[in-house]
Amino acid sequence: MITIGLDMMGGDYAPLEAVKGVAAFFEEEKENIQLILIGDEEKITQLLRKHPLPAGKYSIVHSAQVIEMHEHPTKALKEKQQSSIAIGFHLLATGKTDAFISAGNTGAMMVGALFSIKAIEGVFRPAIGAYMPRESGKLGLLVDVGLNSDCKPENLNQFAILGSLFAEHILKIGSPKVGLVNIGEEEGKGNLLAQAAYPLLKENNLIHFTGNIEGRDILLDKADVMVCDGFTGNVVLKLAESIHDIVQRRNIKDEHFQRFNFESYGGVPILGVAKPVIIGNGISGATAFKNMISIAERMIITDLSGKIRESFA
Amino acid sequence: MITIGLDMMGGDYAPLEAVKGVAAFFEEEKENIQLILIGDEEKITQLLRKHPLPAGKYSIVHSAQVIEMHEHPTKALKEKQQSSIAIGFHLLATGKTDAFISAGNTGAMMVGALFSIKAIEGVFRPAIGAYMPRESGKLGLLVDVGLNSDCKPENLNQFAILGSLFAEHILKIGSPKVGLVNIGEEEGKGNLLAQAAYPLLKENNLIHFTGNIEGRDILLDKADVMVCDGFTGNVVLKLAESIHDIVQRRNIKDEHFQRFNFESYGGVPILGVAKPVIIGNGISGATAFKNMISIAERMIITDLSGKIRESFA
Repeated sequence: MITIGLDMMGGDYAPLEAVKGVAAFFEEEKENIQLILIGDEEKITQLLRKHPLPAGKYSIVHSAQVIEMHEHPTKALKEKQQSSIAIGFHLLATGKTDAFISAGNTGAMMVGALFSIKAIEGVFRPAIGAYMPRESGKLGLLVDVGLNSDCKPENLNQFAILGSLFAEHILKIGSPKVGLVNIGEEEGKGNLLAQAAYPLLKENNLIHFTGNIEGRDILLDKADVMVCDGFTGNVVLKLAESIHDIVQRRNIKDEHFQRFNFESYGGVPILGVAKPVIIGNGISGATAFKNMISIAERMIITDLSGKIRESFA
Repeated sequence: MITIGLDMMGGDYAPLEAVKGVAAFFEEEKENIQLILIGDEEKITQLLRKHPLPAGKYSIVHSAQVIEMHEHPTKALKEKQQSSIAIGFHLLATGKTDAFISAGNTGAMMVGALFSIKAIEGVFRPAIGAYMPRESGKLGLLVDVGLNSDCKPENLNQFAILGSLFAEHILKIGSPKVGLVNIGEEEGKGNLLAQAAYPLLKENNLIHFTGNIEGRDILLDKADVMVCDGFTGNVVLKLAESIHDIVQRRNIKDEHFQRFNFESYGGVPILGVAKPVIIGNGISGATAFKNMISIAERMIITDLSGKIRESFA
């Protein structure tokens, strides 16, 4: 039995969109899965009348508090022990759930993942992977997009392993190609970090390193897993997200640019922590919640954490 | 009299597009300006028959060599003393010209600018500014986009001054707003570099600092001058350039996305060197050449170098 904890109070449209997302998830017949809905029991129960879920597939764990979007992560997690995020991590840490998902305070999710779940042994720094859309309809993965704003070369080398395992098992890309985000194609180019990371990636037998990629390659099919420090990755991710806003504002209808609606991917995984943790976008809608649950389910079924553990053993 | 040196051999469509660009520049009546066309005299003369220029407004300086796009910048500049780029810098360094423009080997242009023209006293590291299009039709300036892949906080602080002067005098933006590219809005966010640069920018009386901007703000009107290290800036620039390729490939006709055709802006300035130097995109066409000459003209007329000198005195 798979048990997934879901923060029903996280995100701008919570708990309604979370409830609708869970309902959508259960539209397909699901065996051996149980959702723990963490949030304001009264509100959730009321919404479930309109969006009923299959009996026996879920339970509600009441939380009396919510960590708001603007709150200081560490402080809020410490002071709001009855918040949905604090309870969610508690359930995950104590083995009551196998994964935890929230579209709430991103910082609190990061802090919770790092301190209550902890990194897998051998992983120096867990990282966040974000999807990058390609015209082929495939997805690339950019790692890190914000957990580590200053990195060492060895961190990038580990991001490559973490990203490759996620790409292979969750995105189902066989032998994912790894590219180092850089400012030139040739070996030896780049800032000190990229210059030092290149030989490590080149010698890493656990990945399929294809060399440097440039900014122009990030949205192309040149590499499946693209590694960089979390500062560069975060700027790139938010820039890519803004493209969809512009496309929407300009009323451009295009299949590919529709893929820049990052919200629809349903959140990004924290890679390298002991159990699956997924951080949703604040503006997550029902589809995003549904997709996040599916990704968490797949991370558990494929035992991604176990595979990461093996790679770093 | 203003004298501008133009490398006729640089770029994928040289010298034809360069000749057409010069002809287009002279379609408007121009007083007190003289262009020095540096390149293969025979080829240029032949092209001028079809694209005539006003007499007395130009001269040709023959160059027997070309630095190719793939060549190693320092090596090529040293070995090819008769190349159009080497001659162009020689003319600029010896005061025969007031500005130099080339769409040739970018690395050679950088090396030439740094070593034969040199930085203005007080400028630790010259930087390259690149335009960022906004829906309003205005342009923002991102500094640095590749000259300095590793930066110190003081470098970013100087980029802000260089960028502000360019924005004010060349882009004609009064009191340009300066934003620090970062991964969060609040002071204290970011990698070590951004954290340390913030207070310097805040206390800098020569600029109008408006705080941090995120990746999503780079294509918006939040700041006119956006400062970051050259690694981040280069990745952002090339990513933004690739958007136009995707839009073209998908046959999307849109006024704003047309502005992502960076080639039309006609090259980017190296800021902080003693005399105006403009680096063109390799795929520069006639319009790009024409625009580069206009920008160089404006940099000379407004005495941008002198204004930078005053700010750093």
